[in-house]
Amino acid sequence: MIIVLKEQPEAQQLQNLEEWLIGLGLEIHHSEGVHSTVLGLVGDTSRVDTDLIEALDIVASVKRIQEPYKNANRKFHPMNSVINVGDTSIGGDVFAKIAGPCSVESEEQIISIAKEVKAAGATMLRGGAFKPRTSPYAFQGMGGDGIELLLKAKKETGLPIVTEVMDLSQLELFADVDVIQVGARNMQNFQLLKELGHSNKPILLKRGLAATISELLMSAEYIMAGGNENVILCERGIRTFETATRNTLDISAVPVLKELSHLPVVIDPSHSAGIARYVHTLTMSAVAAGVDGIMIEVHNDPAKALCDGPQSIKPDAFAKISKDIDTLLETVRGF
Amino acid sequence: MIIVLKEQPEAQQLQNLEEWLIGLGLEIHHSEGVHSTVLGLVGDTSRVDTDLIEALDIVASVKRIQEPYKNANRKFHPMNSVINVGDTSIGGDVFAKIAGPCSVESEEQIISIAKEVKAAGATMLRGGAFKPRTSPYAFQGMGGDGIELLLKAKKETGLPIVTEVMDLSQLELFADVDVIQVGARNMQNFQLLKELGHSNKPILLKRGLAATISELLMSAEYIMAGGNENVILCERGIRTFETATRNTLDISAVPVLKELSHLPVVIDPSHSAGIARYVHTLTMSAVAAGVDGIMIEVHNDPAKALCDGPQSIKPDAFAKISKDIDTLLETVRGF
Amino acid sequence: MIIVLKEQPEAQQLQNLEEWLIGLGLEIHHSEGVHSTVLGLVGDTSRVDTDLIEALDIVASVKRIQEPYKNANRKFHPMNSVINVGDTSIGGDVFAKIAGPCSVESEEQIISIAKEVKAAGATMLRGGAFKPRTSPYAFQGMGGDGIELLLKAKKETGLPIVTEVMDLSQLELFADVDVIQVGARNMQNFQLLKELGHSNKPILLKRGLAATISELLMSAEYIMAGGNENVILCERGIRTFETATRNTLDISAVPVLKELSHLPVVIDPSHSAGIARYVHTLTMSAVAAGVDGIMIEVHNDPAKALCDGPQSIKPDAFAKISKDIDTLLETVRGF
Amino acid sequence: MIIVLKEQPEAQQLQNLEEWLIGLGLEIHHSEGVHSTVLGLVGDTSRVDTDLIEALDIVASVKRIQEPYKNANRKFHPMNSVINVGDTSIGGDVFAKIAGPCSVESEEQIISIAKEVKAAGATMLRGGAFKPRTSPYAFQGMGGDGIELLLKAKKETGLPIVTEVMDLSQLELFADVDVIQVGARNMQNFQLLKELGHSNKPILLKRGLAATISELLMSAEYIMAGGNENVILCERGIRTFETATRNTLDISAVPVLKELSHLPVVIDPSHSAGIARYVHTLTMSAVAAGVDGIMIEVHNDPAKALCDGPQSIKPDAFAKISKDIDTLLETVRGF
Repeated sequence: MIIVLKEQPEAQQLQNLEEWLIGLGLEIHHSEGVHSTVLGLVGDTSRVDTDLIEALDIVASVKRIQEPYKNANRKFHPMNSVINVGDTSIGGDVFAKIAGPCSVESEEQIISIAKEVKAAGATMLRGGAFKPRTSPYAFQGMGGDGIELLLKAKKETGLPIVTEVMDLSQLELFADVDVIQVGARNMQNFQLLKELGHSNKPILLKRGLAATISELLMSAEYIMAGGNENVILCERGIRTFETATRNTLDISAVPVLKELSHLPVVIDPSHSAGIARYVHTLTMSAVAAGVDGIMIEVHNDPAKALCDGPQSIKPDAFAKISKDIDTLLETVRGF
Repeated sequence: MIIVLKEQPEAQQLQNLEEWLIGLGLEIHHSEGVHSTVLGLVGDTSRVDTDLIEALDIVASVKRIQEPYKNANRKFHPMNSVINVGDTSIGGDVFAKIAGPCSVESEEQIISIAKEVKAAGATMLRGGAFKPRTSPYAFQGMGGDGIELLLKAKKETGLPIVTEVMDLSQLELFADVDVIQVGARNMQNFQLLKELGHSNKPILLKRGLAATISELLMSAEYIMAGGNENVILCERGIRTFETATRNTLDISAVPVLKELSHLPVVIDPSHSAGIARYVHTLTMSAVAAGVDGIMIEVHNDPAKALCDGPQSIKPDAFAKISKDIDTLLETVRGF
Repeated sequence: MIIVLKEQPEAQQLQNLEEWLIGLGLEIHHSEGVHSTVLGLVGDTSRVDTDLIEALDIVASVKRIQEPYKNANRKFHPMNSVINVGDTSIGGDVFAKIAGPCSVESEEQIISIAKEVKAAGATMLRGGAFKPRTSPYAFQGMGGDGIELLLKAKKETGLPIVTEVMDLSQLELFADVDVIQVGARNMQNFQLLKELGHSNKPILLKRGLAATISELLMSAEYIMAGGNENVILCERGIRTFETATRNTLDISAVPVLKELSHLPVVIDPSHSAGIARYVHTLTMSAVAAGVDGIMIEVHNDPAKALCDGPQSIKPDAFAKISKDIDTLLETVRGF
Repeated sequence: MIIVLKEQPEAQQLQNLEEWLIGLGLEIHHSEGVHSTVLGLVGDTSRVDTDLIEALDIVASVKRIQEPYKNANRKFHPMNSVINVGDTSIGGDVFAKIAGPCSVESEEQIISIAKEVKAAGATMLRGGAFKPRTSPYAFQGMGGDGIELLLKAKKETGLPIVTEVMDLSQLELFADVDVIQVGARNMQNFQLLKELGHSNKPILLKRGLAATISELLMSAEYIMAGGNENVILCERGIRTFETATRNTLDISAVPVLKELSHLPVVIDPSHSAGIARYVHTLTMSAVAAGVDGIMIEVHNDPAKALCDGPQSIKPDAFAKISKDIDTLLETVRGF
């Protein structure tokens, strides 16, 4: 960490700062410039609060040299993390294909889709029981009943299930869920993240609409700091000025995340664009970029889907995508 | 609402759509173009899910003519809402000056600041008990003890208190709090919003970093749909590409919100810029733009503040701001 | 085009508007709602200035149904455009590999790089003679001498050359250049675009940092409206809040542009990320997304490059990318 | 400037770097950490190209301590610059009120508006002769004839005129223009900026839609580096995800620019919001934020204006704004 001091810092304040830093176990190196002095801190700075230092009258700016996350950091865990989910896994050799409807609507619907996506190669079943909706007047999901239906579909097909939790108070309903999803709007719901840190279940953590890559990793760190190392990172589009697609898929986040962290990375091409006819293209693009899996909305009747219809594809389109992923993986794994 | 159909829509699907719309109590007007047909819907469309319609194969796009919020909408409530908070209020003649530290740190600290800001003209006391922090290793607030200390400061000074809730499970601790704040990261924590809708306490709802003005109003609608009409809207900066300030204060949001909604609007100049020396300027700018109040971080020793130090001002700076607000209000209310 | 009127529009103004629209050769369809009336316009609306209509007191909003561009529009030109460049082409079966240094620095440098990228499979040579630099104190390129050196490299290798024009006044120096590049900062330099419309040379038009896809197509339309149909669109990253990469590559722009327009689309993975080690990944991602070519910065000594060093790769890295593109193309063309 | 080296930098490369830096007249201070070494550079680093250094294999990152602009920098010119324009000025005691139509349309129109805005207190007349329009099919301005008409209006009223240049080749037509405007889309048209640096006319430089404050100052530096110190900075809204206003007025840019630079700062409330009814509010907000002037679109018949009608106000609305500015200035100058 580097601290740039203002011109002619008040001596007593500087002494206080230095004593405090030494008290944190850090060494201080000085570098005097014409207009400013720079302090270089040596030691474990990951727990130093840069805001505190920036608040001092004598400080002009602070720059971290080391990342503020440890558990999620590849530097301290060079090998890729492989996370087991039921009989399958993510982050290793198996490419995760997570597919299913936006919302669970009925037993017939979820079981029929589960069978179809399994036949097409899905490794996990997704489906929303609790749905975050911008409008209080829109369909909010089946809740606990939806989770029951997902578990039936799991029993029927053997596919592990992925579903979103929206609040701490719902967690007890997730006892038999395989992967708990944290949605983009909850990426910085820190109470929820802390609680999930005490679980041992895999957590699929979606990047917030305005969250930087560094903030996504800090949210993963919240979960991991509690003891749960099973975090799956999900890029699902960020909010920009462009309106041709609902969000802007940040494909560069894939190599950046893979470099900074050992955690598996998946992409959600359905929510990124919000348009079903781009799902194939964006999936192929993500596979070529090196993701560990994709999460796709599939519905047997998108036009009747109770939410997010425009971004759902039909099972036959998913089957084509699934097949093309396998072909593409063979090619890109050869690079 | 307007539905633009694709060229040559399949007849059966079109009939299904029209019957469904009529079933919702809407009238349909047709307008045939060379390349496309447009359906105009007449009636109450606020509860129509546009996503459902956009999902249909025969539909090219959908455009709302009326806003999807009703309770928050000035069209249906032309007069400004005045919200009572203890012996004071917001949204009417009283300009709300909400001041206090980022975090409650000790009894001595909060009571001393409370007295100082009251003497300087504050109408409410703010202070964080539960703190949302990007890093799991940063100070997270005193929790319930912090609320106790705020209540002591209220007893001492008579100032109503404003403090942030981070999760449903904390709500019981807020029984004696005057205004419950929902932070930017929780603006779309819909479970929390719903629960607050069943409260009768004023809610100060902060705009999310990537939330549109329309989404902010939809989140207010969540609370109001539950029966709680006491919502205060707070602009606190949005995330853009500019890095000279921590966030970009969207000053235009003030006239837009005042036009679209009858709810009071406040600005948080401390978090917008994240830099204490801009707080005076941004406050004056907001007062000239017509806000109903401001929320400012004040600390007796910003350099020792346990969080967000760089954006806190000292009590004497707040006293100057408070005085200048009064002078400025006299001028701008004459326009 | 749809015009939403305000409630109770003034009758005389409405009559004026309708007469004016009819005078433009448009038919008007009416649709009366409870709170608003909607006019649907039928006919060629691409030359109607929506700003003019929105300015009217009686108008609430205007929505285009048809795109405001014609020449660039796939609807009126369903087949992909193939643009010939010397002995090669772009937009058809040949995948364009445009490679070369950020700046031309010397005869030895450009000829040596030209030979290396040709050997590695490049189909065109890029190199900057006029360089747009944020700082007036940074190296601004060799100018006309740089173009001379590019032409020598062309003579030596047979590779057509691509280089950027920064101002109308430089155009005469571009007489023997094969493809004229318009940089991101000049995407809306309309005088320049108009002049290029009178040329018959292929124009590589880069998307501006804050330009929407629709604006990029409107800039292409400027060139095409002048008679020059040889426009190549280039996505090179947009400006967002994310700072882990210099810009955010908008990969979704590829399928969107291919759908809306018949013009060839290339991606510049070097400027998108601004980081050399992500160039391979982003290139593969773009190929899988269906681009017609890529433009990559290659330098024999990136650390000594006079500009943009961090994003340049070495010739051997380009050779690997080139080979992997061919392998990947075989796979994705089979989908 | 601070250079953070990667772990275990190659010795020869490090020596090369250090010799090169010393050759630039800089002193180097070392600071060794556990994982990285930091070099602190002392001396004039404003002409050091950080990109060059970042390109080196041994370098992890580079951080500037001093700003890369000198002429525009308040550190080297602590007093506000006052720029004379005809008989008036900007940056000192006189608050600049620049008003006039988006486009010059006819002699009658421009003279009548000029008289009205002068009577209402305008200090300069604005009007577009060359108009940057997104669509090639929209009205592009009267060109040289428009400038002639502006000069007639100047003769009639005595108001200095401000009008936009779009290209170098038009400059000779600007011989009698008082202030040359560089539009947002041309903020980084570096050839144009350089040429304007050789002029002695005041330049009104608008911030680009995606330009940071630092980039705006670097563009001012381009002009000033050529010898022309008469630069007026103009904030006119940036592009963000919010669509309720055409652009997002970055009001915080005012205090930031005033702190970093000695140049006068004006705001364009018409283009920021793109909506006439917000112009009064945003103007008051800008005056309270400390701008040196405002630039407002005024039209005698906004509904018939040939461009940008929705954002133009009528002369009587301008008269009210002008009067309210004076009242407000008296108040805020007392703070």
